[in-house]
Amino acid sequence: MSTAPTTEKGRRTRARIVDAAAELFYERGVSATGLGDVIAASGTGKGQLYHFFTDKGDLVSAVIRHQVEGTLAPQRELGLHRLADLQEWARQAVLQHERSPVMRCPLGSLVVELSNRNADAASALEAGFAQWRELMSGWIAQLQRRGEARTDLPADDLADSILAAYQGGLVLARSRGDLRPLETALAMAIEGIGSRRAPAGRHRAHG
Amino acid sequence: MSTAPTTEKGRRTRARIVDAAAELFYERGVSATGLGDVIAASGTGKGQLYHFFTDKGDLVSAVIRHQVEGTLAPQRELGLHRLADLQEWARQAVLQHERSPVMRCPLGSLVVELSNRNADAASALEAGFAQWRELMSGWIAQLQRRGEARTDLPADDLADSILAAYQGGLVLARSRGDLRPLETALAMAIEGIGSRRAPAGRHRAHG
Repeated sequence: MSTAPTTEKGRRTRARIVDAAAELFYERGVSATGLGDVIAASGTGKGQLYHFFTDKGDLVSAVIRHQVEGTLAPQRELGLHRLADLQEWARQAVLQHERSPVMRCPLGSLVVELSNRNADAASALEAGFAQWRELMSGWIAQLQRRGEARTDLPADDLADSILAAYQGGLVLARSRGDLRPLETALAMAIEGIGSRRAPAGRHRAHG
Repeated sequence: MSTAPTTEKGRRTRARIVDAAAELFYERGVSATGLGDVIAASGTGKGQLYHFFTDKGDLVSAVIRHQVEGTLAPQRELGLHRLADLQEWARQAVLQHERSPVMRCPLGSLVVELSNRNADAASALEAGFAQWRELMSGWIAQLQRRGEARTDLPADDLADSILAAYQGGLVLARSRGDLRPLETALAMAIEGIGSRRAPAGRHRAHG
């Protein structure tokens, strides 16, 4: 387990290491990043890194918790209440990747890259995705109560369909160097959670 | 560029190297796999590997072409004509991952892991995903002509939404160690490409 910093200086040093590692893991991947790269990029020393982290796996787990927070905190602040807000969320998600050529989700890319045998990392990622789903599912449950989202499927499943469109849309976008598949996948997934109406001729208000 | 084998024995040796590398890259990732691992797993020698491949990047490109073929060949044989066949395709896609705990797409995982700066690999992956989309889009265009798929969006975009659900559903499945989000995402994406009907009360046959 990593050692918690006891001083403000220690806290800043630890944060510098985690920030540098997060950026390198995001841009190059975890396997392609050595601890020496993290030390160089953070401007810290080997002794400082090993003071806070027992090994690379320990640092990876700290980076995952940092990325979960970095991904979810801005989304928690969005205050999503209407279906139009979900469309705005999608627009922001696309915009964010327009500013960077990496086109990877900091969490999704770790899920794909890291071995399932790395139990600490796997459970930190599982917890992170569970929080993300819970956030999205809470929004969607509100939409269901307002009659703006379909109610024939649980909000959790609808949340999965949106998160899957985001993750998979990014994979396609990265393969093509173009964000259009991400926009398309998100737009269709959001349309797909909208409230169902009965097919024409059946005259029921809700499906 | 890799050297093409001129004898049957050479062809088999090259294939053994590519198969072993494909399996290791799939299970562990490219960065975590050394050429020594590939030599050991394939039961070949360093001289043989360097006879066929100039370097690791060259081997990676060969593995990508191999995985594109391995992914698309069985799908090409499916002969998909009806929306129900697309549901069967999805069922098979899920089943395939039930047999393996890896829960990664051999192509999507390479897109996520490999740097965009690896130009050969990036263009081989882009070509592979373009072929996959073309295959899927051809199926969907048939469904559009039969009135089984919506026609308000191009078949290419509908294909993207299905492939994104597959890629992203797998990311969620892997994070949770459970294939349900993959099933959900695929079912909703397939539902989403179905032919639109006008909302109740508007009395139009098609939206």
